[in-house]
Amino acid sequence: MAAQGKEMKLLGSHKSPFSLRVEIAFNLKGLGYELLEETWEKSQLLLESNPIYKMIPVLIHDGQPICESMMIVEYIDEVWARTNTSILPSDPYDRAMARFWAKYIDDKVPPSLRIIMGLLPGSEEEAVNQILTALQLLEKAFEKCGEGNDFFGGETVGYVDIALGCYLGWFKAMEKMNGFTILDESKTPLLVGWANRFCSHDSVKGVMPEVEMLIEFNKKVRDKLNVAPAN
Amino acid sequence: MAAQGKEMKLLGSHKSPFSLRVEIAFNLKGLGYELLEETWEKSQLLLESNPIYKMIPVLIHDGQPICESMMIVEYIDEVWARTNTSILPSDPYDRAMARFWAKYIDDKVPPSLRIIMGLLPGSEEEAVNQILTALQLLEKAFEKCGEGNDFFGGETVGYVDIALGCYLGWFKAMEKMNGFTILDESKTPLLVGWANRFCSHDSVKGVMPEVEMLIEFNKKVRDKLNVAPAN
Repeated sequence: MAAQGKEMKLLGSHKSPFSLRVEIAFNLKGLGYELLEETWEKSQLLLESNPIYKMIPVLIHDGQPICESMMIVEYIDEVWARTNTSILPSDPYDRAMARFWAKYIDDKVPPSLRIIMGLLPGSEEEAVNQILTALQLLEKAFEKCGEGNDFFGGETVGYVDIALGCYLGWFKAMEKMNGFTILDESKTPLLVGWANRFCSHDSVKGVMPEVEMLIEFNKKVRDKLNVAPAN
Repeated sequence: MAAQGKEMKLLGSHKSPFSLRVEIAFNLKGLGYELLEETWEKSQLLLESNPIYKMIPVLIHDGQPICESMMIVEYIDEVWARTNTSILPSDPYDRAMARFWAKYIDDKVPPSLRIIMGLLPGSEEEAVNQILTALQLLEKAFEKCGEGNDFFGGETVGYVDIALGCYLGWFKAMEKMNGFTILDESKTPLLVGWANRFCSHDSVKGVMPEVEMLIEFNKKVRDKLNVAPAN
C-alpha cells in the first residue's frame, strides 16, 4: 500500500534494531516504504536529516525528517490512526505504562548490549546479568498483561513488543557467538514463548535479520574497531 | 476544579524540576491536586508506587501510579484532552518534533546540572558549557517556531516549554551561587525573553520555586553529601 501517495524513505540498516522497529511499525500498518541502507560512512542525506544526533533511523515523510526510533513508531501510529491496528493502546493509563516499559527497555538493554557486542568497554558478564535482570522484570510485566495474551500489546504486536522485540536478533547472535544464554526457559519462560510468537508474526518475520548475517557484521565491526573477537 | 471526582495525588517536591513539570501541566488544565512532599527519606507510598526507579514524581490517579515526569504530562494531556488547552500539538509531525526536543533537553541538561549542583563529580566549567551549547541549539529551534510566537508551544505554554522551563529556577539559583551566566542575553536573546514570559505565565508563577529556597536546599544537600560549597 502506498503511504497516502507521499514519499516515505527510511534511512536505516538491516542490522540496526532501532531501524527494525520502524519497519515493523510500517508492516503492522500495511504501509509501503523505501529503506535506504546506511553504512559506516554516513550519507549526506542522513547528516542533513538528523544534524543533531547523526544517527539512524530517520523517517523522511514527504520531505520532513522524523528522528528517534520509538518517536517514529508513535508518529506512524498517529498519522495512520485509522487503520485496523493500533500500536499504542487507546486508554491513557495503558499508554503511559507502554511508554514507561519502552523507556525502561532502552535504559537497560542497549548500554549492556553494546558492551557484549564489543562496541563499548566493560565486563561482558556484568552486561549479560544486567540484561537478565531487566528481562526478569519484563517477565513479571508480561505476566500482568493477563493470561492468554500473546503479546505485551494484547492480541497483536504493540509498542512494548516492538521496543523489546527489536533486540531479539542480536540476543540470538550474541548467544551463538559468545556461548551464554540471554532468553532462558528456566528464568523467563513467558518471554521465551513471547519471543517465538514475535519472530513468527507477519509484521516481523520478513524483516527480522538473520543471525548469521549479524554475527558476520559484528566480526567486521570488531575488526574495524580493533576489538578482540568474541570467545 | 476537582479531577473528575477522582483522587489525584502527586508524590513530588517543591525543589524538583521534574515534579514542577506535573504541577504546570495540572495548572494548564485547571485541575486540582494534592502534592505530597517527599523528603530525602523516601515514603513507603513512593517505594510502592515506583518500585523500579523509586523516584519522584509519581502521579497517583484514582489509585493507579504513573511515573516519569514527561509521561505524566502526556497522560494528563490525554485524560483531559477536552479542555481548552492542549499541551502537545495536534499535528503528528509537530508532536514528534516536540517529543524530540523534550528528549534532547533531558539528554543534555540534567547530567550537566547535577555536576553544577555538586551531586555528581565533574568539571563545572565543562558542564556549564554543555548547557550553553544545548541552549544555543534550542534558541535556533525556538526561532523556527515562527516570529511572534511567545512559546515553543505557540501562543501558550506547551510540551517543550514545560520540558525546558522546569529548570529555570535551578539555572537562576546556580547562577547566583556560582557566579556564571547560563541564560545569556548576548548568546540566547530569544530564550531570555521566553524565560521571562514562561516564569510570569499563570500556570507557572505560583509554582516556580524561589531562588533563595533552592540555594538553601542546595547548601544542605552539599553538606549532607560532604561536597565542597559552591564558589
